[in-house]
Amino acid sequence: MVHNFNAGPSILPKEVFEQAAAAILNYNNTGLSILELGHRTPTFQAVMDEARALVKELMQLDDNHEVLFLHGGASTQFMQVPMNLLDIKDTGAYADTGVWGQKAVKEAKLFGNVALVCSGKENKYTAIPKDFAVPNDAVYFHITTNNTIYGSQWQKIPATSIPLVGDMSSDIFSRVIDFNAFDLIYAGAQKNMGPAGVNLVVVNKNILGKIKRPIPTIMDYRNHIADGSMLNTPPVFAVFVCMLTLRWLKAAGGVAAIEKLNNAKAALLYNEIDNNPLFRGTVVTEDRSKMNVCFVMNNAALEEPFLAAAKANNIVGIKGHRLVGGFRASLYNALPISSVQVLVDTMQAFSKQYA
Amino acid sequence: MVHNFNAGPSILPKEVFEQAAAAILNYNNTGLSILELGHRTPTFQAVMDEARALVKELMQLDDNHEVLFLHGGASTQFMQVPMNLLDIKDTGAYADTGVWGQKAVKEAKLFGNVALVCSGKENKYTAIPKDFAVPNDAVYFHITTNNTIYGSQWQKIPATSIPLVGDMSSDIFSRVIDFNAFDLIYAGAQKNMGPAGVNLVVVNKNILGKIKRPIPTIMDYRNHIADGSMLNTPPVFAVFVCMLTLRWLKAAGGVAAIEKLNNAKAALLYNEIDNNPLFRGTVVTEDRSKMNVCFVMNNAALEEPFLAAAKANNIVGIKGHRLVGGFRASLYNALPISSVQVLVDTMQAFSKQYA
Repeated sequence: MVHNFNAGPSILPKEVFEQAAAAILNYNNTGLSILELGHRTPTFQAVMDEARALVKELMQLDDNHEVLFLHGGASTQFMQVPMNLLDIKDTGAYADTGVWGQKAVKEAKLFGNVALVCSGKENKYTAIPKDFAVPNDAVYFHITTNNTIYGSQWQKIPATSIPLVGDMSSDIFSRVIDFNAFDLIYAGAQKNMGPAGVNLVVVNKNILGKIKRPIPTIMDYRNHIADGSMLNTPPVFAVFVCMLTLRWLKAAGGVAAIEKLNNAKAALLYNEIDNNPLFRGTVVTEDRSKMNVCFVMNNAALEEPFLAAAKANNIVGIKGHRLVGGFRASLYNALPISSVQVLVDTMQAFSKQYA
Repeated sequence: MVHNFNAGPSILPKEVFEQAAAAILNYNNTGLSILELGHRTPTFQAVMDEARALVKELMQLDDNHEVLFLHGGASTQFMQVPMNLLDIKDTGAYADTGVWGQKAVKEAKLFGNVALVCSGKENKYTAIPKDFAVPNDAVYFHITTNNTIYGSQWQKIPATSIPLVGDMSSDIFSRVIDFNAFDLIYAGAQKNMGPAGVNLVVVNKNILGKIKRPIPTIMDYRNHIADGSMLNTPPVFAVFVCMLTLRWLKAAGGVAAIEKLNNAKAALLYNEIDNNPLFRGTVVTEDRSKMNVCFVMNNAALEEPFLAAAKANNIVGIKGHRLVGGFRASLYNALPISSVQVLVDTMQAFSKQYA
């Protein structure tokens, strides 16, 4: 068995793979593959409806919040969010907690003004900024709830008087938070939700329609809401796999239940990092991500041999991002704790060998 | 066996479904699903490289033409094309041959001027316009090479002195044409190429970079070219299935070989339409599409019973678009001629019964 710690695209539940493979050969005894099914058929409409309803239920969204499955990834939303919300003379407030937040800032500047209210830059993104003020006259405040590359995470969602926008690509559905506190949430599917090629967008419809700039049809959230997330041919298969994964999550007890498992997985690995003399974490304890665990070795020369030891134990995807170096173990919802135990065992065995 | 005449998403080769299903369970003996494979791994890089190379080979593209697999569908390109090519004071020339061309015009108007050089509107889109002049000072001329809804097709690609842009969503890879005569080609995958959720864009790199308007990072073709179509996480699975389908096409003899089969399929069905007293085609003979065959019944009251007869013979997807009514049989590359024969047999049996 391979232990898949990929940062994304990443592990999904085994039963989802099995159901997806079966649906490609013959979907629900239609005699057709899910890949050749017309998107305007009642058969696919039921998939889209169930996927949207599961998001609403699992996130406990109120009726102001609309659920959309859109083409593209978070990189599309970096542009689409200000295109819909930020007029040329308006200001969008942004928190810079790493690479993805910076990319969001860059796109927003094409549409209006950006107020950078805080940045983790001075401490090399090893912590989430604590003391900052969000301007009341900004039209929204944008945060990246989990920083996939640096391995930091907002453990407490900041309270604001203005609409809150969250890029939750790498921690959506992983923990209980008040999703209704956000007016716009977006997430590329390829971590906790499904395959690459679809975006989840949750938007409070009341914040839309307030700008003067014309918006291209396919980029206007209002058009997607009006057409029930079927404005054009959606990424049918990606939405289908999201639906399967959300079904699996619901059957596993929902977000609260998976959070307990995620906490246990993260505790197991961070405990080893903190107690094994060869390793250390790269993020301050209180801001550590429970999804992406970043760590290095005190003796950098041992990193290559450790990577080889991990590979020998069928561990894949733990090489750190080049900006941080060392290792990154992504512990997404579908990763079993037994895989984390294999990694911990490998660290302990390696430590004994090299102590 | 189901005979799938869906207009899109639509039939793909059976062996592609089998290979795709197998790859979801265990891709190339990696022990990983294709859905959980990191897009920056050499394993996926090989998929992207092969998919791009197959497009280049099958279309016999010269070295100025770059091949990209981008998120979204043709509806995204309606916006992305003028965003990249049309400055605010420039004019884009457009041919209106139906719904999709009109949608392209609508988006172009957000970015610059539009010269509508011809329209099939007066003849209700039953023919491709013949006499028109393309202004030499327009920055490009946009055509929809095949009109999925009305069932018409440009049999001869118009010669122009300005860059030619083609929406080939529903006839790409179906016939031999000089693809290099186009400076930009786009196509949603879900007809002749793969599943919904990815766009093929072929662009002559020399036409880019000529406008002053800043382009959002994810929308700028130049960024995708520079990053080898891996600017952000691509729709991994959709690209993979396109690669499988293009491999199948190459093994089947390429575009020239499939064109012969497509001609035979279209001739078989149009011949029946022309000779069966109950049916008639909706498009003038010389502009008939070989991909989407639109026809009605001389007695509209017989359409419901005929649809029932077709259903009884496992024929799906032949109900016509509401704008045209009647029937539309899509004969994409992967549809076997035996399925067309079943439809023809059904028409003949129905004719005998109701004559």
